[in-house]
Amino acid sequence: MSDVVHIGMLGCGTVGQGVVRILQETAGTIERATGHRLEITKVLVRDLQADRPGVDPALLTADPEEILGDDSIDILIEVMGGVDPTHEWLVRALGHGTSVVTANKQLLARHGPELLAAAEEGGAELRFEASVCAAIPVIKVLRESLLAAEIESVTGIVNGTTNYILSEMRRTGMSYADALTQAQEIGYAEADPTDDVGGADAAAKMAILASIAFHTRVLIDDVPYSGIDDLMSDDVDIAHELGFVMKLLGVARLVDGAVSVRVHPALVPGNHPLAAVAGADNAVLLESSMVRQIMLSGPGAGGTETASAVVSDALSILGSRPGSFLAGALVDAGRPIAPEGSLESAFYLRLEVADQPGVLARVSSVLGDSGVSILTVLQRGEGEGARLVMILHRSPEAQVREATRRLAAMPEVRAEPVVITVVGSGEASS
Amino acid sequence: MSDVVHIGMLGCGTVGQGVVRILQETAGTIERATGHRLEITKVLVRDLQADRPGVDPALLTADPEEILGDDSIDILIEVMGGVDPTHEWLVRALGHGTSVVTANKQLLARHGPELLAAAEEGGAELRFEASVCAAIPVIKVLRESLLAAEIESVTGIVNGTTNYILSEMRRTGMSYADALTQAQEIGYAEADPTDDVGGADAAAKMAILASIAFHTRVLIDDVPYSGIDDLMSDDVDIAHELGFVMKLLGVARLVDGAVSVRVHPALVPGNHPLAAVAGADNAVLLESSMVRQIMLSGPGAGGTETASAVVSDALSILGSRPGSFLAGALVDAGRPIAPEGSLESAFYLRLEVADQPGVLARVSSVLGDSGVSILTVLQRGEGEGARLVMILHRSPEAQVREATRRLAAMPEVRAEPVVITVVGSGEASS
Repeated sequence: MSDVVHIGMLGCGTVGQGVVRILQETAGTIERATGHRLEITKVLVRDLQADRPGVDPALLTADPEEILGDDSIDILIEVMGGVDPTHEWLVRALGHGTSVVTANKQLLARHGPELLAAAEEGGAELRFEASVCAAIPVIKVLRESLLAAEIESVTGIVNGTTNYILSEMRRTGMSYADALTQAQEIGYAEADPTDDVGGADAAAKMAILASIAFHTRVLIDDVPYSGIDDLMSDDVDIAHELGFVMKLLGVARLVDGAVSVRVHPALVPGNHPLAAVAGADNAVLLESSMVRQIMLSGPGAGGTETASAVVSDALSILGSRPGSFLAGALVDAGRPIAPEGSLESAFYLRLEVADQPGVLARVSSVLGDSGVSILTVLQRGEGEGARLVMILHRSPEAQVREATRRLAAMPEVRAEPVVITVVGSGEASS
Repeated sequence: MSDVVHIGMLGCGTVGQGVVRILQETAGTIERATGHRLEITKVLVRDLQADRPGVDPALLTADPEEILGDDSIDILIEVMGGVDPTHEWLVRALGHGTSVVTANKQLLARHGPELLAAAEEGGAELRFEASVCAAIPVIKVLRESLLAAEIESVTGIVNGTTNYILSEMRRTGMSYADALTQAQEIGYAEADPTDDVGGADAAAKMAILASIAFHTRVLIDDVPYSGIDDLMSDDVDIAHELGFVMKLLGVARLVDGAVSVRVHPALVPGNHPLAAVAGADNAVLLESSMVRQIMLSGPGAGGTETASAVVSDALSILGSRPGSFLAGALVDAGRPIAPEGSLESAFYLRLEVADQPGVLARVSSVLGDSGVSILTVLQRGEGEGARLVMILHRSPEAQVREATRRLAAMPEVRAEPVVITVVGSGEASS
């Protein structure tokens, strides 16, 4: 690459403007460290007239051909979002040998393996640190530092909105609805929060992380997910009493050589490294017998943070030996996706029950018949509010789900049982 | 680099044998991902007869010339330790264009900038992830992901022995001496623990981290340090009562454009990210306005972990574009080293005092005269055990040291005052 590196940009919203600003402010540092000047030559935008402080209007174009057809562009930065036509455009650029940096999690969770293959064929680099956890360099660490560390599991708090809501429910005792409203007021949650609170956002990120950690094609459709939208603050409080903290976790792991990736609410023990991750922060715990547990944590969102990750990726491309690491190899280990229900775990079970003698005995007997044993029981409330809360010993998930169906059918059980995975507590989990 | 990459090794102790084992076990993964086979061609050892399970005796040599004079070696892995003759040997290899991976913290903390200059002149790479925090990829993250993030501070628990001792003192109430003995029994502390408990080990690591974070020549002699060997378990307990956790911290930061690096015991607020780092774990908190706070944590020692970092570094060399990032530029920003005492901070102050009326008033007045104000006071014990414990508002360190000298001269103060830095608590610190 020559001394001047030509950058094309697709999109110039908050993140794009951040990239422009960081490249200006750190030009001296970058040139001193790398010997290169990064020069933005063209920026694709939809509306040429919109206000973009600090961005030279002469760089703007509304015609994608001016960027996609320009052979002098060395690195294409994609911060426009969306799956179409972005997908097609990036495949075309990579195919021509133009390296690409993208922050587009939805695109990668759907077409990542295909984009990596296009990069390899075109002799280009594809980098996407900013697509997961903003400036926390999880992807670089997995892809480079831990390439040969035989990662066994990736457990992450990868959605800041839900971590904020759960932290506030615990800290103040407020309801899920109130915590969500508060998150919306301070800009931590969108007006339509479905993707965050329902788990879809975390599922896309976990698909990307699992792909890189296990060198396997994992797409968002391979990731079953559930969110926090039906959690009660009672569950958060009872969990705390039992020594646990409630988190929305992404859990990716190898199970008998297959890759299992899930997103769900989970209880983590109070002394677990992920328990201390508060507010809107993100954290990812990487485990292997070679390196034991390495955790990366920090803010998982933010325009400047995301832009910083985009700039890092551009610098990583400058520093990479062309073709030395095969992009396609990132996901070609050919591991299968594990079937649902194949996991073992400990579980938290909450049952609304009739306030009458003998209920606990009958519930215990149903669980026992299903081969599920009880570690801890709490009896709470009375009358209409009577409930049983249990921590169940580590058992196959399918077995616990079957036991729960039988409990739900009991006349003494007054509402759908709540079942929440418990992770990382010695005997009680993997 | 050709398909077969020739590796020479200096040293074959625990870490060296780990490198051999990891290269064997992960050869398939590495070849699939990088297209390269890493082949160890020669290993320098002192004693050819020692037991080294898994290492082919035909590779061993006791003659350094067989490695240093061998032009076919692409990457030299140094895991023999020591400053001399290692220093001279690595300068020679780098000068010939042979890239070097080293785990040698003492060497880097003394001669790092010179080795980086030698690498740049020779057109070689120098990597040293394993020299700090084993497999936690702090150096790669600082050097690559955060190259242009304008890091403002690096705060680390970079010595596992002392973190273990402090965690146990707090958890069990045992004395420093007992916690040290326990650490020695389970292999977390050496028979001669001076380097760990006195802070020198942490100082060497902080010199290396500060160099890379601030692109400046920082050597171990630039790092004032104190250790935990004269801490009382009382201080650990009182700190806890006041909502703090005692840690041995390395603190590197920019102060008016100069680089300040220190190692000392410190109190961190209970909700600070470093407070939750327990046992023998290490953690490093990286702060900048661009990325806010990013923390990396995990085991900071261990033969396999260290060997894993060495292998990562070799892979990073394979993936790097030769000469694209200028090794010397890592430390050539030319920032000065800040003078001692120039920092502002909040402080913990413990005074053994005479048990008589009016002492608190006289102590307060001495502090007030020195311009130091008090945030919190605890009075503890009586008679011979009477003491005052205070948290002092953020003040220049020199001012607090001066006030402490005046307090020490008071007849009512019965022993040398104990002063401990308080970090990261909102108003009370930076």
